Amino acid sequence: MAITAAHVARAPRIRLGMVGGGRGAFIGAVHRIAARLDDQYELVAGAFSSDPDRAAASAADLGVARSYASFEEMAAKESRRKDGIEAVAIVTPNHLHAPTALPFLKRGIHVICDKPLTGTLPDARRLAKAIQGSNSIFALTHNYTGYPMIRQARAMVAAGELGDLRLVNVEYIQDWLTEAVEASGQKQADWRTDPARSGAGGSTGDIGTHAFNLANFVSGLTLDTLAADLQSFVPGRRVDDNAHVMLRYTSGARGTLWCSQVAAGQENGLRLRIYGTKGGLEWGQENPNYLWITPYNKPKYRLTRGGAGTGPDAARLTRIPAGHPEGYLEGFANIYAEAARAIIARRDGTALDPATTFPGLKEGLEGVAFVDACVRSSKKNGAWTKLAL
Amino acid sequence: MAITAAHVARAPRIRLGMVGGGRGAFIGAVHRIAARLDDQYELVAGAFSSDPDRAAASAADLGVARSYASFEEMAAKESRRKDGIEAVAIVTPNHLHAPTALPFLKRGIHVICDKPLTGTLPDARRLAKAIQGSNSIFALTHNYTGYPMIRQARAMVAAGELGDLRLVNVEYIQDWLTEAVEASGQKQADWRTDPARSGAGGSTGDIGTHAFNLANFVSGLTLDTLAADLQSFVPGRRVDDNAHVMLRYTSGARGTLWCSQVAAGQENGLRLRIYGTKGGLEWGQENPNYLWITPYNKPKYRLTRGGAGTGPDAARLTRIPAGHPEGYLEGFANIYAEAARAIIARRDGTALDPATTFPGLKEGLEGVAFVDACVRSSKKNGAWTKLAL
Amino acid sequence: MAITAAHVARAPRIRLGMVGGGRGAFIGAVHRIAARLDDQYELVAGAFSSDPDRAAASAADLGVARSYASFEEMAAKESRRKDGIEAVAIVTPNHLHAPTALPFLKRGIHVICDKPLTGTLPDARRLAKAIQGSNSIFALTHNYTGYPMIRQARAMVAAGELGDLRLVNVEYIQDWLTEAVEASGQKQADWRTDPARSGAGGSTGDIGTHAFNLANFVSGLTLDTLAADLQSFVPGRRVDDNAHVMLRYTSGARGTLWCSQVAAGQENGLRLRIYGTKGGLEWGQENPNYLWITPYNKPKYRLTRGGAGTGPDAARLTRIPAGHPEGYLEGFANIYAEAARAIIARRDGTALDPATTFPGLKEGLEGVAFVDACVRSSKKNGAWTKLAL
Amino acid sequence: MAITAAHVARAPRIRLGMVGGGRGAFIGAVHRIAARLDDQYELVAGAFSSDPDRAAASAADLGVARSYASFEEMAAKESRRKDGIEAVAIVTPNHLHAPTALPFLKRGIHVICDKPLTGTLPDARRLAKAIQGSNSIFALTHNYTGYPMIRQARAMVAAGELGDLRLVNVEYIQDWLTEAVEASGQKQADWRTDPARSGAGGSTGDIGTHAFNLANFVSGLTLDTLAADLQSFVPGRRVDDNAHVMLRYTSGARGTLWCSQVAAGQENGLRLRIYGTKGGLEWGQENPNYLWITPYNKPKYRLTRGGAGTGPDAARLTRIPAGHPEGYLEGFANIYAEAARAIIARRDGTALDPATTFPGLKEGLEGVAFVDACVRSSKKNGAWTKLAL
Repeated sequence: MAITAAHVARAPRIRLGMVGGGRGAFIGAVHRIAARLDDQYELVAGAFSSDPDRAAASAADLGVARSYASFEEMAAKESRRKDGIEAVAIVTPNHLHAPTALPFLKRGIHVICDKPLTGTLPDARRLAKAIQGSNSIFALTHNYTGYPMIRQARAMVAAGELGDLRLVNVEYIQDWLTEAVEASGQKQADWRTDPARSGAGGSTGDIGTHAFNLANFVSGLTLDTLAADLQSFVPGRRVDDNAHVMLRYTSGARGTLWCSQVAAGQENGLRLRIYGTKGGLEWGQENPNYLWITPYNKPKYRLTRGGAGTGPDAARLTRIPAGHPEGYLEGFANIYAEAARAIIARRDGTALDPATTFPGLKEGLEGVAFVDACVRSSKKNGAWTKLAL
Repeated sequence: MAITAAHVARAPRIRLGMVGGGRGAFIGAVHRIAARLDDQYELVAGAFSSDPDRAAASAADLGVARSYASFEEMAAKESRRKDGIEAVAIVTPNHLHAPTALPFLKRGIHVICDKPLTGTLPDARRLAKAIQGSNSIFALTHNYTGYPMIRQARAMVAAGELGDLRLVNVEYIQDWLTEAVEASGQKQADWRTDPARSGAGGSTGDIGTHAFNLANFVSGLTLDTLAADLQSFVPGRRVDDNAHVMLRYTSGARGTLWCSQVAAGQENGLRLRIYGTKGGLEWGQENPNYLWITPYNKPKYRLTRGGAGTGPDAARLTRIPAGHPEGYLEGFANIYAEAARAIIARRDGTALDPATTFPGLKEGLEGVAFVDACVRSSKKNGAWTKLAL
Repeated sequence: MAITAAHVARAPRIRLGMVGGGRGAFIGAVHRIAARLDDQYELVAGAFSSDPDRAAASAADLGVARSYASFEEMAAKESRRKDGIEAVAIVTPNHLHAPTALPFLKRGIHVICDKPLTGTLPDARRLAKAIQGSNSIFALTHNYTGYPMIRQARAMVAAGELGDLRLVNVEYIQDWLTEAVEASGQKQADWRTDPARSGAGGSTGDIGTHAFNLANFVSGLTLDTLAADLQSFVPGRRVDDNAHVMLRYTSGARGTLWCSQVAAGQENGLRLRIYGTKGGLEWGQENPNYLWITPYNKPKYRLTRGGAGTGPDAARLTRIPAGHPEGYLEGFANIYAEAARAIIARRDGTALDPATTFPGLKEGLEGVAFVDACVRSSKKNGAWTKLAL
Repeated sequence: MAITAAHVARAPRIRLGMVGGGRGAFIGAVHRIAARLDDQYELVAGAFSSDPDRAAASAADLGVARSYASFEEMAAKESRRKDGIEAVAIVTPNHLHAPTALPFLKRGIHVICDKPLTGTLPDARRLAKAIQGSNSIFALTHNYTGYPMIRQARAMVAAGELGDLRLVNVEYIQDWLTEAVEASGQKQADWRTDPARSGAGGSTGDIGTHAFNLANFVSGLTLDTLAADLQSFVPGRRVDDNAHVMLRYTSGARGTLWCSQVAAGQENGLRLRIYGTKGGLEWGQENPNYLWITPYNKPKYRLTRGGAGTGPDAARLTRIPAGHPEGYLEGFANIYAEAARAIIARRDGTALDPATTFPGLKEGLEGVAFVDACVRSSKKNGAWTKLAL
């Protein structure tokens, strides 16, 4: 039991609002726990639903005093309050990310937005422009990059411990859309399989973007082209529920990405493997506290979060000792914590820890362009296709 | 991705104080996260250290306005405030649990106390009397019983799915005291190896009590006698750092308990296996989202938290879908959440969910008696010994 | 410990010859152990090397009395002996499989040939013709289909337990060609990276054919087209050392195949996953005694070789009880045992167990056509390509 | 794929006889495969059953020409043949080991005997005397010491890589006697639960001796005393089916041994963990190709049979490359191979590889004394008891 520094001094909490995440939602609750975990945020306002009654009821459930019937109203009114929100969490379906973010960005309110950035490339570009023209910090919750052992993996790759990278293998496979659950009115499935709300990608947008982001984050590679074969296995489904994608990186490295929502019996099988001239690594989201390192011609070893051999990049996002597992919520909270560091440094004019790292606009654009390229490649029978960045 | 009900309406937060847990402490930070995770508590007061300067500095770190130089002062003053604390978390070394709890109990303030209950049996009995004579709810953070799959295991045993139990095998093995780290002034090791502060048991008190509690919780068995062989492998160590214990239960079931703080390379290896006439189960703390069930003459299967085949006892303590791991902090938070249900029901006069379960006085007494029996048995060369309950 | 029927009556041993497999060879020794394990063969003759001295020395090493300087001589002379060989094992480099087999086939001697069938498609067709025109039984040692749990998997798929298949994911990744070991004169690497001896495929021929065969064997699917991206990562290497292949089956199922000899830190990572409308399965060669079944919306379970829930297709190839692992040699021996059943039934005019199954000409042709299609597809930048069967 | 030296020159095969192992037996078939695997033995004679018809039928099944109705006859007649057996494998129930071995020992025939040495201590002493007075080599098939990674573990302990040993934890748990299968006439269960044939120990004799031997073999420690709690959980069972044993070694190290045949859902769960001042190790029989090394304050690593970091003690018993699993039969065959080295060196007057290691009389005596001490300790309610060596 190495004792870690979970006790840290903290600045006054960041006043946070939320759009979406009312009764029946899933990811909103996750964002709230993530915001709360390290005590850096205080949820003080919300437009939890486009349905005013549901919005009010949700605010009451959560003990949030300032409830708004619309995000526009919230942006406008909060920006005029002296104790108004400093940041907003956007946890709506994809097609609303851009329109929701705009009024907050315009007013210099920081934005923490669920992924993918938007449902469409034009929306993404419009949002990019708004972000670039604003004074706001923009964070995108590609939460898996918050896992400490992913930080460790990235640091080791960057330090050359795997040598020159040759191969990236990433997959994110689930089974929750094995049957036509959207037909039953299940709320999560409903909008995620509706191109108007989700975007042109189904599995590619919902989880393929996570896989793509994770591979980029750890490998540091830049995609050149991809060749995709997308499927909609469930009759009547309007978006892909499985995708096989071959990857070519600019460095000459190659890879594959597999995302699926019809891999029966799989839960959240996000798994990354990378191989270079000197060694390999392997990490799986379902047991995220472990990182396997497999040097060529040396014994394979397993690093554990908080354990021996794990370096400062992991340690700074670690709360508890090795052997006491941290999970999904802690990893998600790390994105909130990283964003908090940036927001507080901006607010207080203090120095930002240079190690602070969180996904933002660049990663968001790449994700939407990835989905777009997959869809275009698949329509051309798997032709090698560049991201339209 | 089965969507779980992480969004719940909540009553006004419970006003919480804390004793101990200042700068340099470990478990206090864990308690704070656990209290915060489900937004059921608000930390409003603290006596974070017996050193007044450190207490004040710690309160400032944490943004806690009402800082006290002593727990007696906190108990007295808070009980006179209209907005005074409703509950106190005690996260001091073991020998201070009883004296600290008493003034709060006297005033009807609920107590959430770190384990073990006390360092000595006389202290435990004194505290028991105070709890029984109070109007306070008393919760003891044997946090591992908060893991959802432990609840699942308990429910399956109770439902007879393993048949009549024959064997219990529980172990909790660590390595952090492999060397004489107490000699280096490491704060956690310092008091934990000092009988005056920790009690007569070293590994038996610190982690053996967890293992014993967990086995009892899941199996529902009652210990008859134990035979213990305790060791202090590190020269100069004043308490046991390893214990082998054989167990005989009143039902005729038998078991073994192994706790160690010198098992080099082990992190927090708490592992439970139970075998009955119809099947077995296996669970390990380091991957707590899995529960193996091994029926006799049928295929072995692995239940996952939130996944198919997992019942309501696990579901009620589950926040996120299967495949997104929950960890130590979530399990710890479940004890806080269970205690919150009891406290709120008491406060508001509402009905308590009858499934609410958390460790308290009974488990605390058993734990201290377990340590005491281990020490006595070992002194008599492993003679079979009853708990002095 | 369920006791299995390892004790079986046996017919007189099959007299076996071997071509290749002399000093310094690898797979020849594996074939000899496989032939010996169940006591169904007796190695009585060999042309162990094209170098006469090495051939003789190898025969002496092995205690094989009848040593020949060439396979032609062996075929001619053995066929004239009353006690001549009934079957020959061919364990030469790929380009010699066809020329070696022909004289034995011509004389009605049964052939057990290492994979792939040949190095080139023309050779494969020539050999096919010879086999079809002979009275010989022809077995190809795609040994992984001999693992009992692979038989179990195949039986469960055939019985519809996974529903309609949607996805096949197969990979075989190694690291032994991470560096240019062929440059050092390592014998295994030398011929395997020489297109003249190995064929146009490197990793695709050596291990990709295994992966392709295994996926076909278990799934029962028929490939329609593939799209391949082949690489030679090691400078100067003349054949592929990594391949990413997307698969489309005639049924509408889709898949991916990954083979690599540069995945640093991987040993013999042959892994198969299949998903259908009702469930999935997962198997890995490095722990071959386990088979995971993951039904949709039911608990995941793990079958073990010899254990409960494992059916007759696995049991008939099982020698020892569950929990006592069988490995690679036992799986390899199962191919020899299956071939022995066919040979003995032919020889003795007895009924052949209808469950007898081993890879032969059809699988061999498919394998060579798979390599050929990969190479052609990759040259056309991953165009979807049919097997030239 | 590191290529290993599976191809070795060999001396003329050792002529082997077998006593026991006829139709319906289990371990006899295992011995035969083990003897055959490396082509060092030829089974030429047998007294496969005390029932003459069954003996003859079994010999016919196996194609063994020289079948005897009794072991006495076999010993007498074979010793008079010029081509008589050089070694005999004894695979009878325990109580027959000693009487069977004696006539062979008297005639200088080498003996390979199944474990435990005998059912009783007096028998063991009688056999010991005979062995010591003979010219025969005596090997006892504590087969688990034949696993290459067990050799690796032993070498690392001996080299001090774990520091001074503190803790040994060994268990061997099965479930095949969870119910009263002996009542159904199952042959294996029948004699193993009959004290007259099995000896006073049930699980302690059948598998506890394996566990005890394995722990001694790897640790190099010498037991001082043990305290045992034995149970017979199944009503009517005449021998123990579960045992909890605490161990004290002469060096001051401590340990526990658990053997069970009623651990429902367990197959052959033989698992060894050892911890010293510098690190720990962990090995499990069901995945025997892995060995975990857990140095204190360094990353944990996993050695694989044939893989990087594995030394010569493992390599000399390794047939195939890393990642191609070897299993129980290969480990068993290693004991036969080691014994063959000794027998051939004796026969041919050649030098014996000094690394040759196999269990024999010493280990056999320790095993019987272990069972005896467990039974005596348990009768005295777990009193600390010395082995009566």
